[in-house]
Amino acid sequence: MSADVARRIPVTLIPGDGTGPECIQAARRIVDASGAPIDWEVFEAGAKVFKKGLSSGVPPETMDSITRTRVALKGPLETPIGFGEKSANVTLRKLFETYSNVRPVRELPGVTTPYSGRGIDLVVVRENVEDLYAGIEYMQTPGVAQALKLISFKGSERIARFAFEYARSEGRTKVACATKANILKFSEGMLKRAFEQVASDYPEIEPWHVIVDNAAHQLVKRPEQFEVLVMTNMNGDILSDLTSALVGGLGFAASANIGGEAAIFEAVHGSAPKYAGKNVINPTAVILSAVMMLRHLGLFDEAGAIEHAVFVTLESGVLTGDVLGYDRGTPTTEYTDTIIGNLGRRTETWSVRDVKPLQLPKLDPAPDYVKATSRAVVGLDVFVETPLTAAELGASLMDLTRDTRLSLVMISSRGTKVFPPTGAMTETGDHFRCRFIIRENPGDLPDEDVHQLLARISREHRWMHIEKLQEFDGELGFTRDQGD
Amino acid sequence: MSADVARRIPVTLIPGDGTGPECIQAARRIVDASGAPIDWEVFEAGAKVFKKGLSSGVPPETMDSITRTRVALKGPLETPIGFGEKSANVTLRKLFETYSNVRPVRELPGVTTPYSGRGIDLVVVRENVEDLYAGIEYMQTPGVAQALKLISFKGSERIARFAFEYARSEGRTKVACATKANILKFSEGMLKRAFEQVASDYPEIEPWHVIVDNAAHQLVKRPEQFEVLVMTNMNGDILSDLTSALVGGLGFAASANIGGEAAIFEAVHGSAPKYAGKNVINPTAVILSAVMMLRHLGLFDEAGAIEHAVFVTLESGVLTGDVLGYDRGTPTTEYTDTIIGNLGRRTETWSVRDVKPLQLPKLDPAPDYVKATSRAVVGLDVFVETPLTAAELGASLMDLTRDTRLSLVMISSRGTKVFPPTGAMTETGDHFRCRFIIRENPGDLPDEDVHQLLARISREHRWMHIEKLQEFDGELGFTRDQGD
Repeated sequence: MSADVARRIPVTLIPGDGTGPECIQAARRIVDASGAPIDWEVFEAGAKVFKKGLSSGVPPETMDSITRTRVALKGPLETPIGFGEKSANVTLRKLFETYSNVRPVRELPGVTTPYSGRGIDLVVVRENVEDLYAGIEYMQTPGVAQALKLISFKGSERIARFAFEYARSEGRTKVACATKANILKFSEGMLKRAFEQVASDYPEIEPWHVIVDNAAHQLVKRPEQFEVLVMTNMNGDILSDLTSALVGGLGFAASANIGGEAAIFEAVHGSAPKYAGKNVINPTAVILSAVMMLRHLGLFDEAGAIEHAVFVTLESGVLTGDVLGYDRGTPTTEYTDTIIGNLGRRTETWSVRDVKPLQLPKLDPAPDYVKATSRAVVGLDVFVETPLTAAELGASLMDLTRDTRLSLVMISSRGTKVFPPTGAMTETGDHFRCRFIIRENPGDLPDEDVHQLLARISREHRWMHIEKLQEFDGELGFTRDQGD
Repeated sequence: MSADVARRIPVTLIPGDGTGPECIQAARRIVDASGAPIDWEVFEAGAKVFKKGLSSGVPPETMDSITRTRVALKGPLETPIGFGEKSANVTLRKLFETYSNVRPVRELPGVTTPYSGRGIDLVVVRENVEDLYAGIEYMQTPGVAQALKLISFKGSERIARFAFEYARSEGRTKVACATKANILKFSEGMLKRAFEQVASDYPEIEPWHVIVDNAAHQLVKRPEQFEVLVMTNMNGDILSDLTSALVGGLGFAASANIGGEAAIFEAVHGSAPKYAGKNVINPTAVILSAVMMLRHLGLFDEAGAIEHAVFVTLESGVLTGDVLGYDRGTPTTEYTDTIIGNLGRRTETWSVRDVKPLQLPKLDPAPDYVKATSRAVVGLDVFVETPLTAAELGASLMDLTRDTRLSLVMISSRGTKVFPPTGAMTETGDHFRCRFIIRENPGDLPDEDVHQLLARISREHRWMHIEKLQEFDGELGFTRDQGD
């Protein structure tokens, strides 16, 4: 029990959809039975809210509660098709800037997998608010879609630091950073650079970088080599789901979404509507998410007691239908009762980690960003839709822009240079990227020259996207093309 | 043996770097011993070429040879740091428009893994020339990087059709399409839509869609449920490396890069320089890539004979150092000799697939693209770099654009709306997306209005990126924001 019994801690509780309420009820009963001084504030989000016509899936009173409590435990939420474009789960993560998604995965007693006996015990730390997950997309032509992958240095630094702090809080000795920096030098490379920079503040922890596809390979081949992995959002999404399959599946996959202002704890699994109301769902993922929540709140004794009770229960062979088959599994309520009955007992064969308080990276309230000492705009990429061939488009653009300050140096199709011709067999469509560079007297290109160039191109061609080509501190801020 | 012994088939052979030459030599000896009528044309690519100063890593004579032979078998290539930004492997794939990457994975005799006995036998078909792999990146501010994920309908249709044709050629019954269409409705959704459309041409094959993170989970949990999976480039990169770990690792991972004009066959693994020249490398991945090549060339008997000989060899316990330990493994040359000695023998316990000729999707030589019946530009997204807060920026932009045809409707930070304020706790940096929509009389916005808006914004703000907001056939061609 924590020292100050009088102190009660308010927590927002969101039962969610499908089997969510059953899982949440199990976790709530166990947390209460542990003596943790939680005052639950129950609020809605998800399917019912979408159906009321609120396209975010999260009503203001739920937002208000989390803004007040700063901590939520939630069941899975559905995003019914046709009621809104955005997932309510993603909405909550983004609106409360919970920039870290934490997905611990470890071998569990009684849950046999092809990896049993190898001692898997790893944590995926996933950046949670940037990257392709922002869902910024454009149809650039009727047949070409573009999504933007945006990665900031500050966002990368923050998640890298979080990963090291998390490792430190759990007494871990290694942190791996998995990126695709070999192909995406700027965006994925941003996390790699931030990671390498931050690592020096944690001399007791060994940092290593691994290419993300190799990480996927290694996680299947030798998962026991990993302790903590940090990744950008989309890669972390895929690899954290991979890891949860190593140890018994989504019924056991807990997660935390942690930011500087608020934290949301939830199971990884969906609402599993076909099992709803049947008292068969495995509530362990939500229970272990509640354990993470108690540690976040500093209630280490209660958290440890529940974790021990879960392990003792699993060791005794009390297991739910997802493990034993739904005709033979222990019902959800009985499984919950067994865990409550085991509170106070300690596993003999399984270890429970001695967790220290997590130090969240301190953030300056003022907006913070990287500054360059010197900078210049040196050209422009103009994305054009046209039925012309690359050669015809090239000739036309050269003609149109002959007396401007900018010179056409290249046209590419999906990143491969197609003009001037390279002899390659590249197929093209109706979507081209046309690169213009300052013809002479390189320096900072004024916007007037940009406007003039666009006016010229607009005379004969349809463009839909422009990128300025910049230099920061003497480094090119744009990539070259395949074949260039 | 094929019927026409007199017909010789030229193939470009690229030994590659590190252990590449040893693997290629093994494959070449086995192919020759099988009686396949191949005339090898040996050419360079990779490290030596980079060191000569050619930043593509692929010299013109190698390009010319592949242009002539249309078929290459290659060893792994290094991309030495500092000699060029682009990988020579990627260069070859893109310049020859080999739009399909094929990665078969199956359980092998004698190679014990946690999945042994479950009969894993699947193929990942990965789109090979589009997506984030184009490597189109911009530093938009000194601290914010952007990569473009470009997906075309035609590219998606082509790879979806390839997957079904591949399934048909191998007598497979199911094709899964794994995408992140739930988050990226336009770009990842493009493959999903193309897949669903193409599926109807293959009534004997069962199509199904799976979210890519769930696919990663299912591939670890129950890989035997998959036959053929098709994916966009980056997802396919990660998941195909996952799958090769299910059955014994990269020493056995063959691959083909197939396009309408040319095909390149190669092992998935790297050049493994630390084992180079030691006669210990496992050449099976290149050998099985050569088997894929022989089938591509219509030499089904020779391909089957080699595949049988490899299985007989593995069944007999002749295995290389990557499986048995490098102190105990069979040397590369002896392993190769054993396979050659086993040519003509057939495995009793392992099946070799009866493969039919692959029908490549027929492509019209004229550029082909999707057309819209009606279309309009309805607004503009302008990406601005500023130290202002969202509220200050919003006030300034509203003021600057008051008498233009476009009205500021929203500012967002990494996909989350921050102006007008939503009450969310979103942190911001110096990078904002500002959305302008036609104020009244919606219709097709002329470029003159775009130029006018940009000129106004340029008066006080620094922008680096513009996207036109378009409608095609009455459907919005842009996504809404979180919180919008």
